[in-house]
Amino acid sequence: MALLVQKYGGSSLGTLERIKHVATKIIQAKQQGHQLVVVVSAMQYETDRLIQLCHTLTPDPAPREYDVLVATGEQVSMSLLAIALNTKKCPARSYTGSQIGIQTDSIHTKARILEVKTELILQDLAEDYVVIIAGFQGVNARGDTTTLGRGGSDTTAVAIAAALHAEECQIYTDVEGVFTTDPRIIPNARLLSQISFEEMLEMASLGAKVLQMRSVELASKHNLPIRVLSTFSNHPGTLVTFEDKIMQRRLVSGIAFSREEAIIALNGVPNRAGIEGQILGLVSDANIEIDMIAQNATDKETNDFTFTLHRKDHPKTLQILQQLAKELGIASVKSNTKVAKLSLVGIGMRSHSGVASKMFQALGDVGVNIQMITTSEIKISVVIDEDNLERSIQAVHSAFELDKLPSEKKPSLMEV
Amino acid sequence: MALLVQKYGGSSLGTLERIKHVATKIIQAKQQGHQLVVVVSAMQYETDRLIQLCHTLTPDPAPREYDVLVATGEQVSMSLLAIALNTKKCPARSYTGSQIGIQTDSIHTKARILEVKTELILQDLAEDYVVIIAGFQGVNARGDTTTLGRGGSDTTAVAIAAALHAEECQIYTDVEGVFTTDPRIIPNARLLSQISFEEMLEMASLGAKVLQMRSVELASKHNLPIRVLSTFSNHPGTLVTFEDKIMQRRLVSGIAFSREEAIIALNGVPNRAGIEGQILGLVSDANIEIDMIAQNATDKETNDFTFTLHRKDHPKTLQILQQLAKELGIASVKSNTKVAKLSLVGIGMRSHSGVASKMFQALGDVGVNIQMITTSEIKISVVIDEDNLERSIQAVHSAFELDKLPSEKKPSLMEV
Repeated sequence: MALLVQKYGGSSLGTLERIKHVATKIIQAKQQGHQLVVVVSAMQYETDRLIQLCHTLTPDPAPREYDVLVATGEQVSMSLLAIALNTKKCPARSYTGSQIGIQTDSIHTKARILEVKTELILQDLAEDYVVIIAGFQGVNARGDTTTLGRGGSDTTAVAIAAALHAEECQIYTDVEGVFTTDPRIIPNARLLSQISFEEMLEMASLGAKVLQMRSVELASKHNLPIRVLSTFSNHPGTLVTFEDKIMQRRLVSGIAFSREEAIIALNGVPNRAGIEGQILGLVSDANIEIDMIAQNATDKETNDFTFTLHRKDHPKTLQILQQLAKELGIASVKSNTKVAKLSLVGIGMRSHSGVASKMFQALGDVGVNIQMITTSEIKISVVIDEDNLERSIQAVHSAFELDKLPSEKKPSLMEV
Repeated sequence: MALLVQKYGGSSLGTLERIKHVATKIIQAKQQGHQLVVVVSAMQYETDRLIQLCHTLTPDPAPREYDVLVATGEQVSMSLLAIALNTKKCPARSYTGSQIGIQTDSIHTKARILEVKTELILQDLAEDYVVIIAGFQGVNARGDTTTLGRGGSDTTAVAIAAALHAEECQIYTDVEGVFTTDPRIIPNARLLSQISFEEMLEMASLGAKVLQMRSVELASKHNLPIRVLSTFSNHPGTLVTFEDKIMQRRLVSGIAFSREEAIIALNGVPNRAGIEGQILGLVSDANIEIDMIAQNATDKETNDFTFTLHRKDHPKTLQILQQLAKELGIASVKSNTKVAKLSLVGIGMRSHSGVASKMFQALGDVGVNIQMITTSEIKISVVIDEDNLERSIQAVHSAFELDKLPSEKKPSLMEV
């Protein structure tokens, strides 16, 4: 018997039939002897419907009231799920974030969880109830409803699981788990049975939208294993856990990528202290987020400074930098808006220097030119022409044999 | 400057355009220097939509969860109204019943208000906010959301107005106010500018669905004037207030009626103590509500005992009584399911015995046979064939000149 926190996303609760199906899954887990706390998202399209209602009134709603409005989405799904469970003779009670005590700060529409009260939950569990809690929402010190921002239900689930010292936080979604890369692009992408927190973080931040990043950070911080699995199958999915608990290790775990990137290169940047801060400060003041940064020393007098950002922010950023280039004496500002980012992620590459060269060689073999490179301890990212993205993923996926199960037969790819 | 509580019903908030219109009305009242607390219902059809979602899952939902579900309706309308007001630069904050502190008992789906906390409201009013509160809902001692039952938003508004000692509780709806009778049936029915609480209670309980009964009782108990008026006009509507504050008095104020009635007559009921209790006890045990009761002494040995009830409950009741008649030696059980009730209501009739005879004469003049009569201090009710209902209302309406304004010219109809 274990205490499990399960989270069901909007597509898992998209219709009344699906809500009944989720109720059946919960009852199955309960019959296996587990105690269950269930976190729910709003029914699919419901949050969009509410936002549209609001935006018909104004594009710029009062944030406090916007939160009150969209928080009703989870309230509907949680009560319907509780009704479905009660109808099947499974005692269940539903709670809003405010009721159960998901204390947050007061930054409406993107609040952060400060504390999770467990008293009511433990009391209900002791009385054999399934406790259903609205994801994505909480309450600030004043008693106002807050929301965590899109995808926040994952964070709610992890925060509750951490507070309860649950055995596992299970994130039910409409995919089977975490794949080596996007199976819609690489048909032989393989489902990973396990992945480390660090790798998952890199995968999440790089556009693999299975789990919200903050929820992975939080789980990692609290030593809480997360399992990503499908509501619509019985496959055990992917367990996100600590590196030392992962049984079958390999150098690399997966390939993440993102389209809609743009690259901006400043050439001939005067080589003096603080100039990078000046450049990025202006960009940041305009509320533009930048992604990769690389700086190449060319000679003593000037540097090259390159970064990537979301394509939509490119025109505004270019305008800012062209102005700045004149002021600072930067030789040229070049940019390319038809690029994509591809990242190879894996704990194993820390100790294996051969990974980078193998990756670059695989790209070279299919004639793909690399425009920019950055690396971290467990990932290598490259910027390439967007048109080359799919065959690049295919080439790297094959080179590292990600479609094959890690096994003793391939000791060169195993970390020992 | 006054403190006003305004309540807007579902049809007043039925579309985003209407919500904007309500925002304009609120701002107008605020510009006149009033402090405003606004109670809202769910947007028209929203509660029905939620109930249908629920009933697709089960006809018999867990009451606690049912309340959580339907309470979202007001949460949507209150936040949209607050957004509309904020957009028009009118500071407004919305609160659920739970947040503001509408304390109720724990009878889910038909809870009663025990206490209204005023601290947050007064604080916001002092800071010049319009305070918007979800009607129809509250919170029990355990922190669970409760609902007051359909029409409960009126009660919320009155309870809040009473707790705040507001100058007036204004119930905005889609009709102009309280009429002498239903204007859809009697085109020359007249809008009453004032009506007493007692009369309004009789009108409300007899099927004039303008105000929920409990809200009128509550207002009366707390000396709180209620004004019923239309969201879609600037007419001052009908003020429901104390008898001694009503300027233009007349013998009768209006005619209420209800269809869907059935009458059951027990003839030859043995004349002994307690037998009426025995009869009605069995009916009440079956959760059947009865309405009018009349008993005629026929001779020393037996009585006639007649009552009315909702037509839907007729078959079950008849079955119970036919069985009981044998046991108790009641001679016969007769019933009629095609009857309607018509009631003449007026404070003035207390001291004027001529009202009853005038009413019966008016009915006789149009050939309507009266099947049953009951009276109270301020009303006379008769049961007639349903087919005769409309011309009966017309006849009584004309006889008491309800289509004409009360004036000095008709001293015989004025109480002096």
